[in-house]
This record gives sequence, structure tokens and C-alpha cells, in this order.
Amino acid sequence: MLKIEHIGIAVKSMDQSNELFTSLLGRAPYKQEEAALDKVNTSFYDMNGTKIELVAATDESSPIAKFIGKKGEGIHHIAFEVKDILESMQLLRLLGFQLIDEVPRRGADNKMVCFLHPKSTNGVLVELCQSIVEENA
Amino acid sequence: MLKIEHIGIAVKSMDQSNELFTSLLGRAPYKQEEAALDKVNTSFYDMNGTKIELVAATDESSPIAKFIGKKGEGIHHIAFEVKDILESMQLLRLLGFQLIDEVPRRGADNKMVCFLHPKSTNGVLVELCQSIVEENA
Repeated sequence: MLKIEHIGIAVKSMDQSNELFTSLLGRAPYKQEEAALDKVNTSFYDMNGTKIELVAATDESSPIAKFIGKKGEGIHHIAFEVKDILESMQLLRLLGFQLIDEVPRRGADNKMVCFLHPKSTNGVLVELCQSIVEENA
Repeated sequence: MLKIEHIGIAVKSMDQSNELFTSLLGRAPYKQEEAALDKVNTSFYDMNGTKIELVAATDESSPIAKFIGKKGEGIHHIAFEVKDILESMQLLRLLGFQLIDEVPRRGADNKMVCFLHPKSTNGVLVELCQSIVEENA
């Protein structure tokens, strides 16, 4: 784990929450994008090295809609940047942590991601993420 | 808000959770201390600029014991470092945020802190913190 890459916050209304967090954090989101596979819209705030990510469901079958239905709006996950996501997944599996994703998958913000099951991490939904380096970059 | 200072995680057993997070994060806590006023023990992991703080109740009347009783173990709060806590409190009050602490109080890790009520912040328990500069330092 290199550092905390972002903290994900589940929200009901992206418009209302963008207004609230812009006011709270004293800055506007620098990026908003849809992560279609997860059926969510995301909005990112740069906090000088670590990010706040707001996440809103675009469909009732989204994991975020289910989370809010069960627990209400609030902090949803912590994402850690890793150097090599396959290596980290292998190590954590050996250490006894339970992976939700068996292979890394494409997440928001140009990342490959994998989630760990909260029941193996003290109730904390942990995301591992590694930036995708474009071949033509 | 200068940056995310730490993320607080509510745990039942500090010993078991220290073992788990040392394994997960690939590093040992660099500091453990009691915050007597909040009736908690704390344990800090340095994540290259941002910290993970484990928080365990030392008494059943601790807010952390109540949180775990209601929601289970998991992410408890996000703490933001501010330059001037009194100024930040005044600004956020004017912006309509609800403060739990009317005046800053002493927290763990040599900080003056103030919490915002989650009902004014999308369900997120937000801590403001400012490092205490010792006069004789």
C-alpha cells in the first residue's frame, strides 16, 4: 500500500452533494465521470494528494443504491494506491484477506481496481487501485 | 481544509485490529495513545502523508462503543487539517454546517479538534484538526 488514494462517499443526489462538498471543502470538483459498469456517477475533489470521491447510483441495482438503502449516505470505502495490483492481490490473499474481485477490473479515474470484503477487514470496504499507464502516452 | 489528516476506524479489540491492519497496510503503528476525554485508545499508521487511526472504546459510555453498537465496526470519521481551527469553525457555521463542539477541544495526537454533525454533511462525521504548537518548542 503506497498511500490513501481516495475516500469514497455514497450520496443520493450528486447535484446537492456537489454543492455541499464544494462548500465544505472550499473547492470545486476537478472531474466528474460515469463508471458505467458499477452504475454510478462519480465526482472527485483534490485534497492535496488524497482525493474525496462522491459516488451516486445511476440505477437502483447499483451497489451504491443498496448501500444507501441499508446504511444511509456516508463514507463508503477507502482506496489505497498500490504499485502492482496483481502482486498486492496475491499477497493479501495469502495473508487471509477475502477479495471481492478475483481479477482486477476497470474503475473510475483511469484505474484498475479490486475490492476486499469488509468482513475480513474490520467492517471497512477497502479498494486497491493502480493507475493505468496508456501505451501511447 | 488543507488536506485529509487521517481516517478514523472504529474497532472492538485494539490488539486484534492492530494485528489485522499491520498485515493489511504492510507496516506497524507508529504511535498508540489514550484519549482519556473521549474514553478511547488510538493507534496510528502513517500512510505517507495521511494517517489511519484505529479507535477502540475504553468504556461502554464512549461514543465509539455507541457507534459500534449501532453500526458495527468500520470507518468512523474523516479528519481534515485546517490552518486556523477557530476561523474554519466560524466559516463553516456561517455556511450552515452544524458543529458538535462549540469550542475546539483537545484530541489525540497533539491536536485541537472540532467535529461537525453528520446530519449536515451527508452522513459523514467530519473532524477539523489543527496541530498544537508547543510554546517552548
